[in-house]
Amino acid sequence: MKPLLRIPAIPPLTGKAFRRSPDSTILRRPSFARRFIASAQEHTRSVFPKLTTKLPPNMTTATTLKGQPLDKVTLESLLRRRMFYTPSFEIYGGVSGLYDYGPPGCALQANIVDAWRKHFILEEDMLEVDCTVLTPHEVLKTSGHVDKFADWMCKDPKNGEIFRADHFVEDVLETRLRGDKEARGLKIEEKEVDAKKKRKKTKGQEAIKLDDAVVQEYEEILAQIDNYNGEQLGELIIKHDLKNAATGLTPTPPVAFNLMFSTTIGPSSNLPGYLRPETAQGQFLNFAKLLEFNAGGMPFASASIGKSYRNEISPRAGLLRVREFLMAEIEHFVDPEGHKKHERFHEVEDIELVLLDRHTQLSGKTSVKKESIGKAVKEGTVDNETLGYFLARIHLFLKKIGVDQSKIRFRQHMANEMAHYATDCWDAELLTSTGWVECVGCADRSAYDLTVHAKKTGAPLVVRERLEVPKVTEEWEVDIEKKKFGPFYKKDGKTVEAAVLALSQEQREKLAKEMQENGKIVIDVPGVADGKVEISKDLLDIEKRKRTENIREYTPNVIEPSFGIGRILYSLIEHNYWVREGDDEARGVLSFPPSIAPTKVLIVPLSSNKEFEPFIRKLSQKLRVAGVSSRLDASNASIGKRYSRNDELGTPFGITIDFQTVKDGTVTLRERDSTRQVRAEQGKIISAIQSLVDGGKTWQDIEFELPIFQGQELEVR
Amino acid sequence: MKPLLRIPAIPPLTGKAFRRSPDSTILRRPSFARRFIASAQEHTRSVFPKLTTKLPPNMTTATTLKGQPLDKVTLESLLRRRMFYTPSFEIYGGVSGLYDYGPPGCALQANIVDAWRKHFILEEDMLEVDCTVLTPHEVLKTSGHVDKFADWMCKDPKNGEIFRADHFVEDVLETRLRGDKEARGLKIEEKEVDAKKKRKKTKGQEAIKLDDAVVQEYEEILAQIDNYNGEQLGELIIKHDLKNAATGLTPTPPVAFNLMFSTTIGPSSNLPGYLRPETAQGQFLNFAKLLEFNAGGMPFASASIGKSYRNEISPRAGLLRVREFLMAEIEHFVDPEGHKKHERFHEVEDIELVLLDRHTQLSGKTSVKKESIGKAVKEGTVDNETLGYFLARIHLFLKKIGVDQSKIRFRQHMANEMAHYATDCWDAELLTSTGWVECVGCADRSAYDLTVHAKKTGAPLVVRERLEVPKVTEEWEVDIEKKKFGPFYKKDGKTVEAAVLALSQEQREKLAKEMQENGKIVIDVPGVADGKVEISKDLLDIEKRKRTENIREYTPNVIEPSFGIGRILYSLIEHNYWVREGDDEARGVLSFPPSIAPTKVLIVPLSSNKEFEPFIRKLSQKLRVAGVSSRLDASNASIGKRYSRNDELGTPFGITIDFQTVKDGTVTLRERDSTRQVRAEQGKIISAIQSLVDGGKTWQDIEFELPIFQGQELEVR
Repeated sequence: MKPLLRIPAIPPLTGKAFRRSPDSTILRRPSFARRFIASAQEHTRSVFPKLTTKLPPNMTTATTLKGQPLDKVTLESLLRRRMFYTPSFEIYGGVSGLYDYGPPGCALQANIVDAWRKHFILEEDMLEVDCTVLTPHEVLKTSGHVDKFADWMCKDPKNGEIFRADHFVEDVLETRLRGDKEARGLKIEEKEVDAKKKRKKTKGQEAIKLDDAVVQEYEEILAQIDNYNGEQLGELIIKHDLKNAATGLTPTPPVAFNLMFSTTIGPSSNLPGYLRPETAQGQFLNFAKLLEFNAGGMPFASASIGKSYRNEISPRAGLLRVREFLMAEIEHFVDPEGHKKHERFHEVEDIELVLLDRHTQLSGKTSVKKESIGKAVKEGTVDNETLGYFLARIHLFLKKIGVDQSKIRFRQHMANEMAHYATDCWDAELLTSTGWVECVGCADRSAYDLTVHAKKTGAPLVVRERLEVPKVTEEWEVDIEKKKFGPFYKKDGKTVEAAVLALSQEQREKLAKEMQENGKIVIDVPGVADGKVEISKDLLDIEKRKRTENIREYTPNVIEPSFGIGRILYSLIEHNYWVREGDDEARGVLSFPPSIAPTKVLIVPLSSNKEFEPFIRKLSQKLRVAGVSSRLDASNASIGKRYSRNDELGTPFGITIDFQTVKDGTVTLRERDSTRQVRAEQGKIISAIQSLVDGGKTWQDIEFELPIFQGQELEVR
Repeated sequence: MKPLLRIPAIPPLTGKAFRRSPDSTILRRPSFARRFIASAQEHTRSVFPKLTTKLPPNMTTATTLKGQPLDKVTLESLLRRRMFYTPSFEIYGGVSGLYDYGPPGCALQANIVDAWRKHFILEEDMLEVDCTVLTPHEVLKTSGHVDKFADWMCKDPKNGEIFRADHFVEDVLETRLRGDKEARGLKIEEKEVDAKKKRKKTKGQEAIKLDDAVVQEYEEILAQIDNYNGEQLGELIIKHDLKNAATGLTPTPPVAFNLMFSTTIGPSSNLPGYLRPETAQGQFLNFAKLLEFNAGGMPFASASIGKSYRNEISPRAGLLRVREFLMAEIEHFVDPEGHKKHERFHEVEDIELVLLDRHTQLSGKTSVKKESIGKAVKEGTVDNETLGYFLARIHLFLKKIGVDQSKIRFRQHMANEMAHYATDCWDAELLTSTGWVECVGCADRSAYDLTVHAKKTGAPLVVRERLEVPKVTEEWEVDIEKKKFGPFYKKDGKTVEAAVLALSQEQREKLAKEMQENGKIVIDVPGVADGKVEISKDLLDIEKRKRTENIREYTPNVIEPSFGIGRILYSLIEHNYWVREGDDEARGVLSFPPSIAPTKVLIVPLSSNKEFEPFIRKLSQKLRVAGVSSRLDASNASIGKRYSRNDELGTPFGITIDFQTVKDGTVTLRERDSTRQVRAEQGKIISAIQSLVDGGKTWQDIEFELPIFQGQELEVR
């Protein structure tokens, strides 16, 4: 249905792509690094923020599905008008970082989630769980979130304005660089309108020429902004005299601000808790029960779809950075031994992905390569089969729901960018008008979480596997006759015991012989008597014994594909948007694939003639029974206007009921992207729609099967 | 599929049913009153609490789907073993009122939600929205929740134990009454095991005979426990010397405890917020946008499915009273004029509901009547068509998902039981082993919420309707020449102006004539000069004018059906549970309707023979393509055992792959409830399953169409 685009070379990245390394003291979930946007406009106070258009340098503007320049203002006006989403509590002034989904956004979200559930949970027999958002303090203390899930924050001492420290440094330096460029008479990258706003805001800093050395220093700082910790950011602020333009003051030194929302569970205040920042912890805590549910079988995956919460310091990027968001996360538990093979890997090994690996980035390049996941795993670019399998499955999912194939890449985290528990991590990034946005993270979390929770609680979060061939070992063991040993050595008892237990296998073998021969042994025990201690046979026994292990016990590793549904939804909107040029005015179209489109069919009666009513009712009901969602537009607007309105909602099909319908029961079926139509009796049209929605047929198939209709009055315009 | 049960007379209620009236100072959401359970066992500290079996007196024990006595312990063991749900954070000791859903619970919940979405949102073209859980203080202050959404709480002064005051009073009085009964040698209603526990806990209070007058007084208090406010509960505690058995001390006087979880939004602490206690407010705040999305058309409904939060004082009733729960709410906006007619009411008017109306309850009776909703609305039992329409639709939904028709009733709230904004409210109650549980509330919220939010924010949360016939009115109007009027009367200006504006139409008419004749008028202004004030023509003009109104502006009323998905899910489990007697041991079966069952098909290979593998793979894939969820059980257990295990999961169908399959491609299909089987080739079996799941065919139809199979080895024993 969707016209296939030629896949162009992926544009190289700006320096921004490098700025991902977390400072060493702050834990970053690899799946959703929070600073992919570094925009000069982030401090705009609008509750419906206009995203900036920071794009790779060779891409001067974002493009629509048809390659037209993307007019963000027009798209946002469409999204607001059609209520895809809207700022929450707007009549109360709004709260930044909180959005409500209106009917089309809600249906789009539900369809993406439904596709996700089918693609991952059903297709792979995953164990879905639904855990609570409320989480007691102790759990997130153990997982490391209480101590480390934070951003650096500073404050204007006069007006109290709060900044994310890294964003503050970036903003001021970028403003100065812009002023320098202007003073040098160079072209400024950003759109004229943005630059104007900026100029107004940062009055007094404009058009000041900087020394070449200063320019270079600023650029180097910006290139590694994510590498600084709070202290270093504070030093930068002092060293470069960075001030808040609104007050002319230096902000306070950066302090860590934990991003979790806190609350208290129960009536007494002794059970502090948080809103979970990820769904993962609930899945880890249920590991033992899930393993049992799975009859002990390994590997297996759990999955969860639910809201998570992060109290962002100053969210200003629409749906791309919000405080409450829907996540879909998979925790795939796998035996760390055996190279994390995946039994279905052969099914995906030929799938080609666009990869930007760690080594390329570290060598200062941003060139991507397109290669099969089979090759990438074989060559070691991707660590193991299980990780590779999920990268390919993520790719297939994004393709299925309508992500533009030319605007997706997989970027590997650099070593210092990953959370400390991860051994490898790849982000699926989608190109939007804001730049590359990480929409899915796929991390190898190793055994970190299960280990810390097991250690804290004593719960056996392990797999016990019966060994087919029991493992037999022979070892020299020492048995201490505790009842006599302690009283004999008195205060030195513990020290002597420790020395005995520390003896190596070789020493034990030698001493066993000595004991057999002499009835006693002498060993070195520094700090007791003269450093030599005699032990007689009645106090100690040394024997060689066989040990047979029938069970192998291990803590599984976790591969975690983690999806930010809101970010995917927004990217999907941009990727499927284009403008149909018309005689009077251009009209927006959202070319969602039929399976994802919020509504599948618009029913349009030619006029408000009463004769049409029974046909409308019957058709609606038939569509409902067929499981196809439809909407009726019986307004007085022209058919063209109504279809046009509907194109904005991304509805792929339209059925017109006209006087011919009254005569012979036939209706026309219009396809959104081509605006072409066929005409047939209702039963045929409905089954055509069904097969178009479930992907069994294309519009070309339908045009081949059913007669084309070319009624002039039904044209769009 | 599910055997139809004869609908017996609904058992009358205990006094409990009366105890619903909220005290006057606490706002109660009618949809989920929080005290339907008043159990002697609520203070058990188990994280997987055993629900008590408070039942109507003529029902000595709860029953299964087949009328067997319900063994709660066995059922709960099944639910835990099969991981339907599990206490959250159990390895950390658990948190009361928080539960995670495991794979079957999760699928059951998803299927209920899916059925709900189809039955309500799609069927009725509702506008679904997804609003945030995080809600700023101001919104819930306006809605009344900050001040009034509370329960009464008291505390033991020594050990700090916290009680819900009404539950505390109930518990102590019930314990005394039990002791009295024992002393009189009467049979105690509760199960022996419960009574024993109780005795142990309240040692020292057992078997003390009370005066007859005291018994009567206690019983009267218990019968109206929900009518007491905090002060009155405190008085009862003092008057009757009610003490905490654990310490022998009187608890502190009750204080109001707000049930909302509070948090802070953003990095500065100046935006306090709450986790929403209901999804409704988000829908109300979006009213104007939704109306516009609906092209101004009225009536219309919005709907929302999402989590809500209530910080219960001491939740102890499993899924029936939790702190985090999934709700599905509809807000149907309707013109308050025109008796709230509903255009599709005729479609449901013949549906018969079991009703327990307000008047019956107030006259001290609990007898229900079964009558058509058409009759109930006509006679005024149910206030209006829209409310009636939704009651019928709720009934149809509950029936569709498999609620036992003999265990459902609609109970009307009594006048003093409703929230102050409601004009009528009915609860759909389901009978469980805990008694009648309100699972759906259906309230007429009038214009309360839209009015308070509009007043607070100034947002026009109204419908503006063009009048077909403009409304013309003629009135005498007064125009004050403000520039002269004020300076002329100086300090008396405001008082004189108020007196002028307060003049009636009749007075204005008379004075207009006087003004025309004399060029001045004299009016009474008490408190100014001698009480008479003269006003000349240059200060005031009185004229008769025509006013034409083309627009009617009104605030819609709201009918709100509100569903507690977790409560429905739990009730559904009890309603569909029964025990199949076997040779060795009885086995639990959950007879969910196929459309709701967590998994539709179990695939069972006869043995682990390699020959079966390609058939298993192919069958799984075909089922997936057909949209039918399946699970494979390739364990070594006997086929009977595997089917039996599966009956506990409520899977309606089983397919066996055996050596005949290898020969001719046929498989057997087993139906869970009858354990009968048919055999046919896979394509036929799959389409049979599809039509069984979508409700197109019954098992009887399939037995008629496909050959019966009676392989002895496949029988469940």
